[in-house]
Amino acid sequence: MGFCGVPGHEFVGTVTDGPKHLEGKRVVGEINFSCERCEFCHRDLRRHCAARKVMGILDADGVFAEYVAVPVANLHLVPEKLADEEAVFTEPLAAAFEILEQVQLEPGDEVLVLGDGKLGLLCAQALKLTGADVTVVGKHAEKLKLLKRSLIRTALLDEWKVRQFDFVVEATGSADGFQLAMGAVRPRGTLILKSTVASKHHVPLAPLVINEITVLGSRCGPFAPALEALEKRMVSVLPLIEKEYALSQGLDAVAHAGRSGARKILLRP
Amino acid sequence: MGFCGVPGHEFVGTVTDGPKHLEGKRVVGEINFSCERCEFCHRDLRRHCAARKVMGILDADGVFAEYVAVPVANLHLVPEKLADEEAVFTEPLAAAFEILEQVQLEPGDEVLVLGDGKLGLLCAQALKLTGADVTVVGKHAEKLKLLKRSLIRTALLDEWKVRQFDFVVEATGSADGFQLAMGAVRPRGTLILKSTVASKHHVPLAPLVINEITVLGSRCGPFAPALEALEKRMVSVLPLIEKEYALSQGLDAVAHAGRSGARKILLRP
Repeated sequence: MGFCGVPGHEFVGTVTDGPKHLEGKRVVGEINFSCERCEFCHRDLRRHCAARKVMGILDADGVFAEYVAVPVANLHLVPEKLADEEAVFTEPLAAAFEILEQVQLEPGDEVLVLGDGKLGLLCAQALKLTGADVTVVGKHAEKLKLLKRSLIRTALLDEWKVRQFDFVVEATGSADGFQLAMGAVRPRGTLILKSTVASKHHVPLAPLVINEITVLGSRCGPFAPALEALEKRMVSVLPLIEKEYALSQGLDAVAHAGRSGARKILLRP
Repeated sequence: MGFCGVPGHEFVGTVTDGPKHLEGKRVVGEINFSCERCEFCHRDLRRHCAARKVMGILDADGVFAEYVAVPVANLHLVPEKLADEEAVFTEPLAAAFEILEQVQLEPGDEVLVLGDGKLGLLCAQALKLTGADVTVVGKHAEKLKLLKRSLIRTALLDEWKVRQFDFVVEATGSADGFQLAMGAVRPRGTLILKSTVASKHHVPLAPLVINEITVLGSRCGPFAPALEALEKRMVSVLPLIEKEYALSQGLDAVAHAGRSGARKILLRP
């Protein structure tokens, strides 16, 4: 987005200035700041507001800071029993739950999640809650191992033999992911795109028509089910954390987060 | 598909050899010959049969011939009141009706059809039956004029100012169509792909994710509603015909059909 400003859009914080009923309370916050005036806001599609600002991404400073300003309407109270280290996953977990707003999964449906990054592992756990038969294919044995105690199947990409699934979630974050995903979705199946890879893809679209594939773009999601899943311990997020840095060590933290295979890095002001 | 054989997959014919109740009857026929044994056939997805032959396209000779062999299960009787010149549109009109199997259009939904070829004009008419607000954008004034007596809006591409629609049907048959279509679909809108352009596209997929677009591949469709629409004169197909050739003039006919702006060319054995 060519953004210039304070980055960061996943946070948990304490309200220091705002409505009395929120002051001193722990909150998480939705990242799309909507105008409440445009056609999309009126149609209850605020996350697609045509004039939106997006925290740390578009026209609004983000959360790699001691303080951040967030519209009251975007805030959600954090249940007491949730640790900061769990609540901070609400935003990416909501993005995983967005898939369940878009498609109806049935127990036994075969679902493939491509990518074992943070988003891939969260998507797999959210989708598994439907009783679907979920497989995650990734490049990092140590990340796939994090799913060991779940009922989610895992495979290393190099050792995996492509087969066809009812639903494929593309969460690789790489330019090759789309092509790989197209090869793994059955005729009349659904391919859910989670990666916002900026480069142009060389995509043959004819197979999409011939096999009548549905491709769904999927971005930010609803916070309420994500918070509920965290509170009820229906998903496991603490093993996804690699290290916590002080905000003053922010540059080291960003460098660490950029290492291949790194899990979630947290910053604490 | 690298097909080598007799081309052609849109036809109306008379049964000369087959079950007694069909002999001498006029029929049209579905083009996917399914195996009846694979997983897709068992799931009632015969048009996606993994071992299918496709008339004039894949492993089965087509209809640019005096005689063609078609499985009995693929045949549909042609109502008496339909002329050959109307019935021959059943297959492409069925492909247009396939869209209505895939999406639910409501009266007032804003629908854009990109492309004023035969398929574009048929799609526009089929979709208009839902009461949706349909606009066709194309390159040929004389083709767009064919829709004059319908309630379908038309515009020439060069004079058209892009705006956003709830549904966009890409029926240009050209490699640029996808990009154009992406620019004309609103956030959370649906883009229906009808063109099977063989070349690879350079497609930026990030906007698809950010705007949560649904992309639907759409191919062959159901014959029954197409035949009914033809019989009840709910769509107008005769103006789409440009010329009829004898089969012996087939090469001239194919050359004519390939001219820019040509409407439907018919062959009669």
